[in-house]
Amino acid sequence: MNHTALALALAGLLCTAAMAAPAKAPAKKKTAAEILAASPASDWRALDPDNTLLMELASGQVIIELAPRFAPAHAANIRALAHGGYWDGLAIVRVQDNFVTQWGDPDGEDATKARPLPAGVAAKLPAEFSVPLDRIGKSARFARLPDVDGWAPRSGFAEGFPVAADPKAGKAWLAHCYGMVGAGRGDTVDSSNGTELYVVIGHAPRGLDLNITVVGRVIKGMELLSALPRGAAAMGFYDKPEQRTGIQRVRLLADVPAAERPALQLLKTESGTWTQLLDARRFRGGWFVHSPGHVDVCSAGVPTRPTPP
Amino acid sequence: MNHTALALALAGLLCTAAMAAPAKAPAKKKTAAEILAASPASDWRALDPDNTLLMELASGQVIIELAPRFAPAHAANIRALAHGGYWDGLAIVRVQDNFVTQWGDPDGEDATKARPLPAGVAAKLPAEFSVPLDRIGKSARFARLPDVDGWAPRSGFAEGFPVAADPKAGKAWLAHCYGMVGAGRGDTVDSSNGTELYVVIGHAPRGLDLNITVVGRVIKGMELLSALPRGAAAMGFYDKPEQRTGIQRVRLLADVPAAERPALQLLKTESGTWTQLLDARRFRGGWFVHSPGHVDVCSAGVPTRPTPP
Repeated sequence: MNHTALALALAGLLCTAAMAAPAKAPAKKKTAAEILAASPASDWRALDPDNTLLMELASGQVIIELAPRFAPAHAANIRALAHGGYWDGLAIVRVQDNFVTQWGDPDGEDATKARPLPAGVAAKLPAEFSVPLDRIGKSARFARLPDVDGWAPRSGFAEGFPVAADPKAGKAWLAHCYGMVGAGRGDTVDSSNGTELYVVIGHAPRGLDLNITVVGRVIKGMELLSALPRGAAAMGFYDKPEQRTGIQRVRLLADVPAAERPALQLLKTESGTWTQLLDARRFRGGWFVHSPGHVDVCSAGVPTRPTPP
Repeated sequence: MNHTALALALAGLLCTAAMAAPAKAPAKKKTAAEILAASPASDWRALDPDNTLLMELASGQVIIELAPRFAPAHAANIRALAHGGYWDGLAIVRVQDNFVTQWGDPDGEDATKARPLPAGVAAKLPAEFSVPLDRIGKSARFARLPDVDGWAPRSGFAEGFPVAADPKAGKAWLAHCYGMVGAGRGDTVDSSNGTELYVVIGHAPRGLDLNITVVGRVIKGMELLSALPRGAAAMGFYDKPEQRTGIQRVRLLADVPAAERPALQLLKTESGTWTQLLDARRFRGGWFVHSPGHVDVCSAGVPTRPTPP
C-alpha cells in the first residue's frame, strides 16, 4: 500500500468514525413500543391491593394508586373511607378546564345533610405537603432526572410517582402532574381529610406543589375524568345538581374479590426500561426532525400493561 | 437615651426591617382579579378580523387567533380555507387524552372523496417550524420571562402567544402550550397545508416544538374542544364516524358581519398588566402558603374580556 492509499484509507476510517459508522446500518433508535416489548418481567410490578382504589362510574372504571410514603395519614384515611363505602352514590361536583376534576359529597358543607364518616375515619388530618428528603433520597427509589425543572431544584420519579425535591430544605413532594390526585382543602392547611379528592386534568398546575396534600395518581381510566363537561359556576363547580356525574362506588382493591380485580401491571420507575423510555423521549426518532434533549417530570406518563398470562 | 436603650431601639429597627415592616400593615398582594380590574384600557387590544377564526359547533363557538408572524404561509392558507368555507360540515376526527383534539376532512386521505380546496388555497406549503429570532427579538414585542425553561434557552410571550427561542441558533418558535393550534403533518416536514388542525388539550407536549407548524391559539371556547370523548382507535381517532363532532362552520372574522362579531378584547402581553399577572403567579398570596417563585411559559393563559361599552 503506498502512502496515498494509506492516507485515503485512514481518512476513510476517520470519516467513518466521525459519521457514526456508516459502514453499518445507522443505530436505529428504539421506539417506546419496542422498549416496552423487550422489557424483562422483573421491571413490572402488580397493583398493591392495600393502596389501590377502584372507582366505578357509569362510563367505566378508574383506578387510582395511593402514595402512602408521601401522605401516610391521608392514605390511611382514604383506605378507611373506601372500606366504609363513603363515596358510593356521591358525585363528581367540579370540572374546571385546564385544571382539575373534583369529587366528594355535594352536601359536605351542610352539617345536617353531609354523609357521616365511616368508622375509623379521622375528621381532621395534618397537612402532608412534603416529606423529609431522607424518606426517599437515601433509598434507591428516587430516580432523579438530569433535566432542569423550573419549579424545584430536583425532580424525578419514586415508586411510580413524579416527585420534586429541595435538598437545601431537605424536602421531597409529589408533583402536580397530569393525573395526580390530591385532597381538597379549605383556607387552613390542615383542613383536608381525603373525603374531597381532585385530579389534575390540564397543564400541570405545579404552582399547587407544597400547598396541598397530594395522595396518589390515576393509573387507568383518566379519560373518564378528563372528558367531562366543564362546570359553569365559579371554579368549575356545576351549577345544577343534574350536571354532576354520579359515582357508583369506590372500593379499596383489598376489599374486591380476587377474581374481580383488574389484571394490570405498572412499570417500575426504578427500572432500566423506564430509563430507556425517558431517553426515547429526550432523543426522538421517526416522525421527529428535532429532539428536545429534555424531558419534564410531568411530560412522561408511567406505563401500565395487562398482567401477562 | 442610654446605650442599651439605643441598642434595643436599633435592634428593633433591624428586626422591623427583617420582618418586612410589621409596623405597617403588610403590603397585601394584589389578586389577579384586582390587577385586571385596575388595568388601563390601553393594555387591551381588539380581535384582528383578518387573523381570527370563528368555529361554530352545536355546543357553542370557538375563537382562534392566528399567528401570521410565526407561520405566514399557513396563516394565509387558513384564511383562504375559512373564506372558502372549507371546514363547513367537516368534523372533529381525533381526541387523544392528554394530547390533542384534531379536526379536518374525515375523507381527506381518499382522493375520490376528499373535499376540494377552495380557490386561492395552496395544496402544499413550506414547513414553518421556527422564524429568525430577529423577527421578534429586535422589536419590543418579545416579553422574555426571567424563569428557566427546560425546553429552550429562552421563553416568553410575543403578541399574545407563548414563545420559545434559541439565540445561538437565531431562532424563535411558538411553544406547544395548552390551547395552542397547529397544522397536522405526515412524515415529511412540508406535508401540512392547514386543512387539518389540532389543539393541545393536555399537559403541554413541548417535545413537538420545532417539529410541526404552530399556527395560532384558542382564545375562547377551549372547553368545547377539551371535554370531548376520547377516540378509541390508535392516536385517539374515533373508530366510528358517528362519534365525531360535526363542525357547523368556520369563518374568518373579516367575513362575519360587524354586528355578529364577538365583542372581545385580549390583554397585550407587552403590557404592564401582563407583567403584574405573571408576578402574581410567581408570588402567591391568599390560599397559598408556598410561592413557587416561578412561572412557566405554558402555565399562564392570556386573559380575554368582553369589550367595555
